[in-house]
Amino acid sequence: MNVGIYIYDDAEVLDFSGPFEVFSTASRFLPNTNKFNVFLISEKQGKVKARGSYSVNTDYDITNYPSLDVLIISGGVHTEELKKENVVKWISTVSKSTKIVASVCTGAFLLAKAKVITNHNVTTHWEDIEDLRKSYPLLKVHENKRWIDEKNVITSGGISAGIDMSLHLVCKLHSNELAEKTAKQMEFNWMKNS
Amino acid sequence: MNVGIYIYDDAEVLDFSGPFEVFSTASRFLPNTNKFNVFLISEKQGKVKARGSYSVNTDYDITNYPSLDVLIISGGVHTEELKKENVVKWISTVSKSTKIVASVCTGAFLLAKAKVITNHNVTTHWEDIEDLRKSYPLLKVHENKRWIDEKNVITSGGISAGIDMSLHLVCKLHSNELAEKTAKQMEFNWMKNS
Repeated sequence: MNVGIYIYDDAEVLDFSGPFEVFSTASRFLPNTNKFNVFLISEKQGKVKARGSYSVNTDYDITNYPSLDVLIISGGVHTEELKKENVVKWISTVSKSTKIVASVCTGAFLLAKAKVITNHNVTTHWEDIEDLRKSYPLLKVHENKRWIDEKNVITSGGISAGIDMSLHLVCKLHSNELAEKTAKQMEFNWMKNS
Repeated sequence: MNVGIYIYDDAEVLDFSGPFEVFSTASRFLPNTNKFNVFLISEKQGKVKARGSYSVNTDYDITNYPSLDVLIISGGVHTEELKKENVVKWISTVSKSTKIVASVCTGAFLLAKAKVITNHNVTTHWEDIEDLRKSYPLLKVHENKRWIDEKNVITSGGISAGIDMSLHLVCKLHSNELAEKTAKQMEFNWMKNS
């Protein structure tokens, strides 16, 4: 089960490290033959300077990566990313062949730009709710939700809500038991009431 | 205010990225002259392969780093780190000149080995409580605590508890108002009842 997390310069650190932690922790309870293979993808493979000058190395670029079961788009300072036609086109194309597409925080803007979410029920960071509504009036943008799952397109609230959403993905892709074990291992108070 | 987070190969991703997120998010609310300067330190500066093959680049090594106000020791697979005399000695030495020393998760074992915690009230990951008690019988090791603050030596519970502890540090070093704003920005349900 390949889980790719898309990041970029000024991506929010917890938006991608939170989901990474969930899938890698969940995998510790799974046999070698059935683990989540979680990795980072960026436009160009290599060093990415996430928000706060946090330097992380991605595993793949958008032209060369394993086939994905899950694609997660990180939020952060996403405005420069929206301007990149190749990135938006890649998100649009790969989303068609991926079981689950998800966003954390303002990653929802990238999903909207790529038309992965069009008239869906969605959410984003509380500070960006109005901007998302105005930019994409057909979207039904909800407040005070940790995540919203509509037809395998899942958007989460801001920053730490990506952890709750990722636990939901573990539940969906494997079992509630594994998601509960993962939350306990992370000593994380999983907010399920999406 | 310099906040250094010590990491190593097989450090737990959320143990260091969670505190990093807290201090960098808190800084967005602060003027340029008064921000938290948060960075990663490792034995040798450069690439560190954290748990789950998460590749991150540290800013400094233990022989060359800015003077620290706060030192946070990440948990993870810490056993190899305990064997490194230079690392343990560094933790011991630097802790004497640092306002606050903290550990996340099994980082407490490194603080104990370095004699930063001796007969203190402390906590660690729930799975490691017994091991810490047996290894350092003079420590008073508590269960079911998000963090314990004793004389500016602060230990936290497992993985995500490092976020709660870091918010406590923001509160202690700046104000409860800033810690609350940071938690809201991160959409994090801060568990204060330490």
